[in-house]
Amino acid sequence: MPYVLIQVTREGVSAAQKRALIEGTTRLLVEVLDKDPATTFVVIDEVDTDNWGVAGETVTARRARAASQREAT
Amino acid sequence: MPYVLIQVTREGVSAAQKRALIEGTTRLLVEVLDKDPATTFVVIDEVDTDNWGVAGETVTARRARAASQREAT
Amino acid sequence: MPYVLIQVTREGVSAAQKRALIEGTTRLLVEVLDKDPATTFVVIDEVDTDNWGVAGETVTARRARAASQREAT
Amino acid sequence: MPYVLIQVTREGVSAAQKRALIEGTTRLLVEVLDKDPATTFVVIDEVDTDNWGVAGETVTARRARAASQREAT
Amino acid sequence: MPYVLIQVTREGVSAAQKRALIEGTTRLLVEVLDKDPATTFVVIDEVDTDNWGVAGETVTARRARAASQREAT
Amino acid sequence: MPYVLIQVTREGVSAAQKRALIEGTTRLLVEVLDKDPATTFVVIDEVDTDNWGVAGETVTARRARAASQREAT
Repeated sequence: MPYVLIQVTREGVSAAQKRALIEGTTRLLVEVLDKDPATTFVVIDEVDTDNWGVAGETVTARRARAASQREAT
Repeated sequence: MPYVLIQVTREGVSAAQKRALIEGTTRLLVEVLDKDPATTFVVIDEVDTDNWGVAGETVTARRARAASQREAT
Repeated sequence: MPYVLIQVTREGVSAAQKRALIEGTTRLLVEVLDKDPATTFVVIDEVDTDNWGVAGETVTARRARAASQREAT
Repeated sequence: MPYVLIQVTREGVSAAQKRALIEGTTRLLVEVLDKDPATTFVVIDEVDTDNWGVAGETVTARRARAASQREAT
Repeated sequence: MPYVLIQVTREGVSAAQKRALIEGTTRLLVEVLDKDPATTFVVIDEVDTDNWGVAGETVTARRARAASQREAT
Repeated sequence: MPYVLIQVTREGVSAAQKRALIEGTTRLLVEVLDKDPATTFVVIDEVDTDNWGVAGETVTARRARAASQREAT
């Protein structure tokens, strides 16, 4: 009866990618822990880049800086 | 001081249903554990059917299959 | 396919109380949202009073103060 | 490697406030626990006031009552 | 920068199985979403069977019933 | 009415450090979002190093490697 929460930034995750995450995670739990897929939940939570921080800054800020660095080269 | 998270698929949960979930959960915690309702939080998280997987497939896919089976009968 | 997390302080919640929380929450989701109990998960997370803060202090500190106030009267 | 989830009602949290929450939380974990900011995640989850309950009622209802009380005075 | 929470019942998950879950989940996020493994967190939360409910009863009760049925045959 | 979850590895977090995390987080929410401390929850979840993965390996493995590298120098 596993419950899995996958939290990622909301940056264009497609329906096909969501299906691949759900299939892959479920298969992993079946293979590693012999869980019943019928009672395996996988929930994907997409988080705006303004709402995700790492190293003390938002992902929005990190993406903007990375983009400006690419333009500068 | 309980905190309760209720995660359900986003399939038209009405404001009245949300109120019923919040009232019922709070009452349950008061009755069973004698908690103070003033510091009992209930958070409802509605998840898109593309983002919820069970048995290795999305709820979107399950709903579509159930609908096509109903039509076929 | 709901998933419910009930987070409470670890202060002697009995097995019977846990069963009552699980039964009551599941019944609520069936009644309010017509959910299938077979795919309704309820997870109870007991948190040490040192690890739960409210109003900027731990529940441990709040319980100690309440106890000393009762003794003082 | 801390992970911090900050759940608040969705009531106009600005981008600047989100940055302040992320910076402040990360600094706190560095100062108190000597954590590496590079692997400190802070996720802000904004919840609709219809979906947040306290004392058995939605925040929507609490805000409406508080507003009508202010008008009445 | 994904964060993954894997919640399972505490029923003897070995250190090797935990490593397999962490490796497999991280690889999945790299393959499907091209995420950087260095900032991919996987947290495994083991939950006592008394604290996990499905279909309105604890996993403890389900395991006991399944065991008694096996003995009866 | 904020709810904050702070998830860290279980590596000897002291009661004083927990108090500092709870005080600091609550103060931050008051300062940045003008929240009422009386309804601000902070929950600290300590996770075994076997149960926390980053970069596809457990924190246990990372700590062991770091220790053996220090000894080798």
